[in-house]
Amino acid sequence: MTTTDTGTAGHSISPEQQQVEQDLVDTVVASFDNTADPRLKQVMQSLTRHLHAFIREVRLTEDEWNRAIEFLTAAGHITDDKRQEFILLSDVLGASMQTIAVNNPTYTGSAAATEATVFGPFFTEDAPEIPHGGDIAGGAHGQPCWVEGTVTDTDGNPVPNARIEVWEADDEGFYDVQYTDGRVAGRAHLYTNERGEYSFWGLTPTPYPIPHDGPVGKMLEATGRSPVRASHLHFMVTAENLRTLVTHIFVDGDPQIGIGDSVFGVKDSLIKTFEQQKPGTPTPNGRDLGSQAWARTRFDIVLAPEDA
Amino acid sequence: MTTTDTGTAGHSISPEQQQVEQDLVDTVVASFDNTADPRLKQVMQSLTRHLHAFIREVRLTEDEWNRAIEFLTAAGHITDDKRQEFILLSDVLGASMQTIAVNNPTYTGSAAATEATVFGPFFTEDAPEIPHGGDIAGGAHGQPCWVEGTVTDTDGNPVPNARIEVWEADDEGFYDVQYTDGRVAGRAHLYTNERGEYSFWGLTPTPYPIPHDGPVGKMLEATGRSPVRASHLHFMVTAENLRTLVTHIFVDGDPQIGIGDSVFGVKDSLIKTFEQQKPGTPTPNGRDLGSQAWARTRFDIVLAPEDA
Repeated sequence: MTTTDTGTAGHSISPEQQQVEQDLVDTVVASFDNTADPRLKQVMQSLTRHLHAFIREVRLTEDEWNRAIEFLTAAGHITDDKRQEFILLSDVLGASMQTIAVNNPTYTGSAAATEATVFGPFFTEDAPEIPHGGDIAGGAHGQPCWVEGTVTDTDGNPVPNARIEVWEADDEGFYDVQYTDGRVAGRAHLYTNERGEYSFWGLTPTPYPIPHDGPVGKMLEATGRSPVRASHLHFMVTAENLRTLVTHIFVDGDPQIGIGDSVFGVKDSLIKTFEQQKPGTPTPNGRDLGSQAWARTRFDIVLAPEDA
Repeated sequence: MTTTDTGTAGHSISPEQQQVEQDLVDTVVASFDNTADPRLKQVMQSLTRHLHAFIREVRLTEDEWNRAIEFLTAAGHITDDKRQEFILLSDVLGASMQTIAVNNPTYTGSAAATEATVFGPFFTEDAPEIPHGGDIAGGAHGQPCWVEGTVTDTDGNPVPNARIEVWEADDEGFYDVQYTDGRVAGRAHLYTNERGEYSFWGLTPTPYPIPHDGPVGKMLEATGRSPVRASHLHFMVTAENLRTLVTHIFVDGDPQIGIGDSVFGVKDSLIKTFEQQKPGTPTPNGRDLGSQAWARTRFDIVLAPEDA
């Protein structure tokens, strides 16, 4: 029997066998030829090609196929209105972040547009409006953190009246939507002034694990990966005629950045210095924090053109 | 901005953007570097590469990503002990058949080994033993069909005492496990004689749809595909020192073969002539079928060596 080394996984696959496998791929791809929607046809045919390439490359065993079916079944059964294991799966495989990447291409005018990162499952529409220098905590526990910056376009022009949504976990790693009492905390929105400036009090972000008591958590454990997300503060910035930016800022020095953010959200350009301030240090807007230490950081945001 | 046409989907992707996307792939692949089990590491890293290649090739939109999450969630929620939507999904994407293909490589000694096809969800361990010429129907409704053949190895030697499991749907498309009364019907096992021969009465196979009232059915409808399986009769053949064969035979002339078997199980070598016999035609073993028409077919089975 003549054999050819495919070089993919140390297997020698005969030309006859390769033909059998390729014929099957071609048959499945052709089965989608009559799809009315050309985009759906493109997506299903590409999905088929890549799925089959994976199975052929690793020479997936029937036992592994069974375990994959069991994994998806368990993910389906743990998923409900509050827990979304398929999103977690997409997150930890970097598929969510890659989808963000292809939909938010890098853009450089006079200045590079701020990079996007994962949206996450914890945004809500109901965050209260706060004035400049207002507090988003709403009772959420954590170290106060002054956040300030500007919003500009890629030509360096300030963007007035940009809407900035910010949200984050408390220092135990919980978002308000994970509280049992339904209160709104750790989230707000505000608008830039005529010079494109904004400022608010948030909480110094701390690391927390994604839910890891399900099949995705088991997979992370089996592969020696941490379920912990690097400390971060979420932003969504919208302004007329500019591309909406969904991103986070991360905390320089957070050891989880080196260990690895479990959903691959970190980009170097989004790591910011959070300067620790001793208790009693005067605050930028005169807020009295008593004997509490606090932190401050700066995040200057650059929005790409809408259709870049 | 310099652009490079990737040629994959009519998109022009800048080198900077391509680098961002490739860096993400590399980061996710590297996150599996510490997997203790080398095979699990290989599978996860290959899965990551192919999943990201798919997302990048089609430039998956965030809306499409959301619909994929909704699809998987719906598949998870319809799946229970009796309904397995993820297996159906694997089946209609040809992933089940490709897994069969890579685990049952083509083998040719003096004669080509019989090709394998999908196992399906309807095999059970409890099928009764029948003698040569016995009836597997057990009350299942359909046209009687005489099936006979031999089991040999690839050097042409007869294989005595090979165990042959056969199972099939009734002429309304239902297997006994889909009946509500728990009876065993349309399945049996028997053994080849010292010349490697076997024979039994089954039912002439008829086409039936896979369950198509869930998300997989919706996908087939949206892509213009038939949920119907080509008519078939299942075989599983086991013999000492030979590779276990899981396969079907299909009915020459079944229009569904041209339309397309919904799970891609058909192979040309497995399509057999089922000769229709007029009522009153004497049967091979003297069974009295009264005024019923019947059919006959032949399936000579060749088993590959165990580790081929």
